[in-house]
Amino acid sequence: MPVRSASSPLTTERFAPLPPGAVVGILGGGQLGRMLASAAARLGMRTHVYAPDPDPPAAQLSNRTTTADFEDDEALRRFADVVDVVTYEFENVPVEAVDRIGKYRPVRPGRQALAIAQDRFEEKSFLRKSGLCVARFANVESPQDLAEAVASIGYPSILKSRRFGYDGKGQASIDGPEDLETAVRITKSGSAILEQKIQFSREVSVIGARGAHGFPVCYDPGENRHQNGILRETRVPARLAAGERARAIHMAGTIMDRLDYVGVIGVEIFVTPDGLLVNEFAPRVHNSGHWTLNGCVVDQFEQHIRAICGWPLGDARRHSDVVMSNLIGSDMRVAHDLAACSSTAIHLYGKRDVRPGRKMGHVNRVTGPAGLD
Amino acid sequence: MPVRSASSPLTTERFAPLPPGAVVGILGGGQLGRMLASAAARLGMRTHVYAPDPDPPAAQLSNRTTTADFEDDEALRRFADVVDVVTYEFENVPVEAVDRIGKYRPVRPGRQALAIAQDRFEEKSFLRKSGLCVARFANVESPQDLAEAVASIGYPSILKSRRFGYDGKGQASIDGPEDLETAVRITKSGSAILEQKIQFSREVSVIGARGAHGFPVCYDPGENRHQNGILRETRVPARLAAGERARAIHMAGTIMDRLDYVGVIGVEIFVTPDGLLVNEFAPRVHNSGHWTLNGCVVDQFEQHIRAICGWPLGDARRHSDVVMSNLIGSDMRVAHDLAACSSTAIHLYGKRDVRPGRKMGHVNRVTGPAGLD
Repeated sequence: MPVRSASSPLTTERFAPLPPGAVVGILGGGQLGRMLASAAARLGMRTHVYAPDPDPPAAQLSNRTTTADFEDDEALRRFADVVDVVTYEFENVPVEAVDRIGKYRPVRPGRQALAIAQDRFEEKSFLRKSGLCVARFANVESPQDLAEAVASIGYPSILKSRRFGYDGKGQASIDGPEDLETAVRITKSGSAILEQKIQFSREVSVIGARGAHGFPVCYDPGENRHQNGILRETRVPARLAAGERARAIHMAGTIMDRLDYVGVIGVEIFVTPDGLLVNEFAPRVHNSGHWTLNGCVVDQFEQHIRAICGWPLGDARRHSDVVMSNLIGSDMRVAHDLAACSSTAIHLYGKRDVRPGRKMGHVNRVTGPAGLD
Repeated sequence: MPVRSASSPLTTERFAPLPPGAVVGILGGGQLGRMLASAAARLGMRTHVYAPDPDPPAAQLSNRTTTADFEDDEALRRFADVVDVVTYEFENVPVEAVDRIGKYRPVRPGRQALAIAQDRFEEKSFLRKSGLCVARFANVESPQDLAEAVASIGYPSILKSRRFGYDGKGQASIDGPEDLETAVRITKSGSAILEQKIQFSREVSVIGARGAHGFPVCYDPGENRHQNGILRETRVPARLAAGERARAIHMAGTIMDRLDYVGVIGVEIFVTPDGLLVNEFAPRVHNSGHWTLNGCVVDQFEQHIRAICGWPLGDARRHSDVVMSNLIGSDMRVAHDLAACSSTAIHLYGKRDVRPGRKMGHVNRVTGPAGLD
């Protein structure tokens, strides 16, 4: 039995590994579920996808699919009956659905990570309580709150809805008093959070994993480039000093330990002249970790399956430098041409309809053997 | 349009690439079909597996499965109706089934490679006619033929049934006159071939691919170790002199060109003090190419799908040295422990029943960045 490190809480439930042939239930049927299902199959696991929409990308690579809403208690119960462990592939799965399933089967990562990640204010509060640096922030429930928060945090800042925002949706920049009017609208559609806008030199993310025995493992940080609020590109290695790299990895480890986390997590970090700030985390495999499919022996998807099934975590070492580029909307037109580029791996998600802003696939260009920046 | 090389016959049918969303039909549902289906999904293709046995390993990763015999003309016809291209994942698919489907849809690689590979005498004759060195051999239809063949080829030799042998089945060593009696029995169960037994220093195999435009691409040769007639291990790089490596790759290229081949092929080659001899080829992805899953940006399965779908072939360069070990029968017991080894990727086939001699999965141990022996 391995010795638990001091930083790993003893409260971690130790669980026996699931044998090959066990059934992994996946809540959500998008591309992340698809790549999780593929990885689960490599470990001999069977998979059952639960998703509201018919013929989701993950169904192609799964043994079974349930098409039902996350509010359908009876369907959730039947799903729980036929799986051995449950995970989720996106963080907007209702916590109530996870609670419902959790009565019958283990859900990993658990409900705590999900609940915190669903609420930007809870998330920032949790990060600060965990001793990690974050941008200044304030809860905003009303136009009055907004005025007070802006007075305290100043310009430039950014107002975000507390819940269900992604890819830049539900956000408004407040660079001066002239932006307040637009921002007030967001406060009217629900709780929001005002955050200091960080002047960062770059954004990196750390993909971490923590298994049944509580030991965190992290991949090398990747450097992200966004466009219109959507991730365009992640490259490894990120341009980080050795000390920054270590701190970024430690931040991810701290979050996983504090949450007694089991599974893969994606942690976004701003690099600023004053140090590293955690922006947010996603309690799931992460777009910025897709490079691991061609940069490591064990990728983030297999790592997640290993973790939730109680298997030993795999080697997170990077054997190659990689540039991952998302194929968004009409980028799909060039997929075939990209296939002709050397050292380029194509990963398409099997989505029938090409829509602007829709993630259709990604490309990993292996740029050479692993080096440090 | 790329210029065709002199060695690529102009007779190659040029075909347009299939778009993502096209349906790849796979005849056979074993682990090779499973890994082909996974690769096809990565390229956004849908898959339809046709196999006689229910719940085959490939079904888990496919959109659709047809459970029917290869002699079921009606089922073959219905299958052809709903796919865009057809391939096979094992070489004992009846040529008649391929002919039946071929009336409606392209089958790649075509019927010629399949027909030759199904008959050891045809195969050896084809190789010799292609100018490649093979062991001395003779057709054996009767005990009388056997006596004459042994007189001509001498001891030690090996008698093999011409058709449907694999993993050492249907073979008898003839090391001296005392072995003739056993060997005679094989001649009674159908046509056979007597081959000179080669005293080789090692066996290597070349995984090659040839696409819609007729250009062959080959992976680095792997070195194979068998036990009881079953492949146990393939390691790259193989211990070959530079000249031998080039000759091995050229042999695979010659076979593909002669067959006007489209798809991935596995060519087994003996290294002897007198040079390289081709032992046999398999017109499909090959067990000795499983190392490519963790040693290359584009593995043999994706390469095959690219070829049969008319996509550009991927980069076959090796980024890492790999040792591939098959998990056979009760080896499955150690799969979980192997998962704890560093730089080790597990690939299980989802087979429910563990049987002696049955290939249950394989393990790729990445031993370092690509080097030459």
